[in-house]
Amino acid sequence: MTHASASFLPPVAIDPDSGMPMYQQLSDWFRRAILDGHLRPGQRVPSTRHLAGELNISRIPVLSAYDQLLAEGYLETFTGSGTCVARAIPSGAPGGRRLRSASNGESVGAARRIARRAAQLHGPEQTWLDSLGAFRVGMPALDRFPTAIWARLVNRHARQLTVEQMSYADPAGHGPLREAIATYLGASRAVRCDASQVLITTGSQQALQICAHVLLDAGDRVWMEDPGYPGAHQAFRTAGAQMVPVPVDGDGIDVEEGMRRARGARAVYISPSHQFPLGTTMTASRRMQLLSWAERDDAWIIEDDYDSEYRFGGKPVASLQGLDTAGRVIYLGTFSKVMYPSLRVGYMVVPKDLVPAFHAGRDAIDTFSSTLFQLAMTDFIREGHFARHIRTMRALYRERRVALIQAIDRWMGGRLEVIGADAGMQLVGLLPEDVDDIAVSREAAGHGVSVRPLSPCYLGTPSRSGLILGYGGVTPAQIDEGVRRLSLCF
Amino acid sequence: MTHASASFLPPVAIDPDSGMPMYQQLSDWFRRAILDGHLRPGQRVPSTRHLAGELNISRIPVLSAYDQLLAEGYLETFTGSGTCVARAIPSGAPGGRRLRSASNGESVGAARRIARRAAQLHGPEQTWLDSLGAFRVGMPALDRFPTAIWARLVNRHARQLTVEQMSYADPAGHGPLREAIATYLGASRAVRCDASQVLITTGSQQALQICAHVLLDAGDRVWMEDPGYPGAHQAFRTAGAQMVPVPVDGDGIDVEEGMRRARGARAVYISPSHQFPLGTTMTASRRMQLLSWAERDDAWIIEDDYDSEYRFGGKPVASLQGLDTAGRVIYLGTFSKVMYPSLRVGYMVVPKDLVPAFHAGRDAIDTFSSTLFQLAMTDFIREGHFARHIRTMRALYRERRVALIQAIDRWMGGRLEVIGADAGMQLVGLLPEDVDDIAVSREAAGHGVSVRPLSPCYLGTPSRSGLILGYGGVTPAQIDEGVRRLSLCF
Repeated sequence: MTHASASFLPPVAIDPDSGMPMYQQLSDWFRRAILDGHLRPGQRVPSTRHLAGELNISRIPVLSAYDQLLAEGYLETFTGSGTCVARAIPSGAPGGRRLRSASNGESVGAARRIARRAAQLHGPEQTWLDSLGAFRVGMPALDRFPTAIWARLVNRHARQLTVEQMSYADPAGHGPLREAIATYLGASRAVRCDASQVLITTGSQQALQICAHVLLDAGDRVWMEDPGYPGAHQAFRTAGAQMVPVPVDGDGIDVEEGMRRARGARAVYISPSHQFPLGTTMTASRRMQLLSWAERDDAWIIEDDYDSEYRFGGKPVASLQGLDTAGRVIYLGTFSKVMYPSLRVGYMVVPKDLVPAFHAGRDAIDTFSSTLFQLAMTDFIREGHFARHIRTMRALYRERRVALIQAIDRWMGGRLEVIGADAGMQLVGLLPEDVDDIAVSREAAGHGVSVRPLSPCYLGTPSRSGLILGYGGVTPAQIDEGVRRLSLCF
Repeated sequence: MTHASASFLPPVAIDPDSGMPMYQQLSDWFRRAILDGHLRPGQRVPSTRHLAGELNISRIPVLSAYDQLLAEGYLETFTGSGTCVARAIPSGAPGGRRLRSASNGESVGAARRIARRAAQLHGPEQTWLDSLGAFRVGMPALDRFPTAIWARLVNRHARQLTVEQMSYADPAGHGPLREAIATYLGASRAVRCDASQVLITTGSQQALQICAHVLLDAGDRVWMEDPGYPGAHQAFRTAGAQMVPVPVDGDGIDVEEGMRRARGARAVYISPSHQFPLGTTMTASRRMQLLSWAERDDAWIIEDDYDSEYRFGGKPVASLQGLDTAGRVIYLGTFSKVMYPSLRVGYMVVPKDLVPAFHAGRDAIDTFSSTLFQLAMTDFIREGHFARHIRTMRALYRERRVALIQAIDRWMGGRLEVIGADAGMQLVGLLPEDVDDIAVSREAAGHGVSVRPLSPCYLGTPSRSGLILGYGGVTPAQIDEGVRRLSLCF
């Protein structure tokens, strides 16, 4: 923290006689200055000592105000590098942003006040999500889904729904489905649990929401893989948690750097099997390091094991949950990628002593999941369709992955460096340093190609520019044509 | 605030040399004292001025600490009557409560830290919810649901799901369903909206969560009907909002009392068509009064119009949303009561300028609702099954309501005073003042009768004791037998 930064501050207006507590005047002033753009994202703010001295007031209200602003996500802090305006705050003045009418495009005279946390959320509409073709991320080979079998199972239960099955149900989910999932996870992911620890959700986004609300209070700190999964950013933002970006290297999340940045964090969010977006598989030693940190510092590990069904290179890696002897891991999974996204069924596995709290959280968030699909899903697993479909898809995605890597070799002339292709349904192509990935994605969308830029996945300053390419839902011919078109975009 | 109350405080331990900010030491001390039971729910705490004087410190850290504790829900305040320990805090020490293993009943050595807001949630398991028989609240006549028609529609779409229908979809919901709902609400509830304002949810609980997170930041105040809907309490608690109980009288929520208790509240939650649980219908003049308060004070009205399909006495009452000229109302509805609870499809109608913020909130909370049921529901409405089913059920519930009132006359000998029977699928029987409604509910559960006690619906001190009786899912014969058994319970 240098002296100079303070001089960049616009004059701080506080009035000791206003009757409003000093700390509140201060936090209001900062919030306004940030929203109005007088303080820019990433800009350092004076130390509490320095600001108190300058304003000739006690340091306590300044500390309170900073604490409040940190909790609300207006400021962020890194150990040893001072406090600065959060980089994640949209520059377009969230608290006072102008909202447009969706139906007729009229803007309302003045924007009306909604929650600050809501104003920080990104809208769901993004150019690179529009197309269903190459290379939409997270899209399985839906044309290969056994729709006839699935429809038969759904119909079987729809025709004979009992009064009990139509009623309000257990927030934890349908018992036999929880049994089937516990067995599947034990066998295929080395997850150690019984059915009582399994909780059915509407997908991983809801599981993230439940974790955020059950484990964290507003202002609590959580380590986030950086770059990381934007859906997780949204969930923790909604809960008012303070996200601490922690870099990911070739071994997974950098645990030591996490401890340097926020030792006393309450939780960490990770995707160790196939990191989103970089595709890194977390090494065993990093896993052990993370587990001992969590145990020692009384922190929770939220393990998002999405995409773990498909692994092509190296040995299958057991889940972190299976290594955990201290009950520190909450394990998340979804059927969106293995079945189909609009099914909206996922699951989580929670430590035994947290089961009641998670049930209460699930109940508060949306009561319980639709029963009919849970019944059909139970049969789908029990009758072997699930395992068979995964096997078929694994072979298919292996082919598509090879096709994508070959197409990149063929069309890109070394301008796209492939990483993270050992597992899942997507890989990352790193761009040359001077190329703007958002601009490339926009350009590609114009050519009918959907690629997701890497840089918006960063909470902190993006350190790499790249494109995330999903290959699950595209045939080898579409892959080749998609890469050819993409090669024209930069 | 009397001087006396301060003397009840255990000695406050703060250390000016500890390096920890004074306000934080204070709030930690209060939190601990509340959780450990040294300060009891409802107990007054000293005024900030008084406590600062007693501790010989500045008033500012005391103000900050109280503000923090209010925001977290440990303290609550009523204009003119000082600040006291929140009544909603479970006496069993939430932050440090002992959690039991669900599978084997072992308790973990020491309870582990989860979010304070989560520790304040009630578990979903309650005795009076166990039975599906008389008089389970919120349970429609499921045996009269046109299952065959519904299964045919579900099957129609399940067999021919397109790749697009299996993919990630609009967080706002399926366009044609939103159109159908807008038309239905316009015609039957005088809701003024177009499809762009309709948002599909997984039910009213999720709609409440979205409202809480989009409209309120942690610590923001919201008026709650008292007694009111416990599901709403859960949602606002999760969001960290500060709930201000506002009494309900024969005209609906007491707007003037609300203004006295918390003039600057950010929002109000109401169920004006058939108040939960009392069954009051809000009068037109109260509606206008509430709308002008909201407009004047920049507040939002969350109108939960559950149960509005069935009205037996008096004229149908238009929705508050339809009277609102300032775009202040967020309107919530659900298909759980008209279709069946385990369907998990509901909807909300939001002011035009808030559409983008609500879409972002919906996306953050669980992405979007399952597509298949939305397709089937669209057909169910369009092909006239929905309107027909409502008509049939209205006649049926009218009969059942009469049967219940007659059975109460017959068996109760005046010990149960019926109120709120003009609409919906439930009514309230007020108990004599000295009868404990929770004890009666437990006793009734032992006799196979499910009645929901009134007193847990209060946020503040319960002013009435009573039983909520759902009659939707029970035949006249079951009703008579249920009331007979119930008459033996007190």
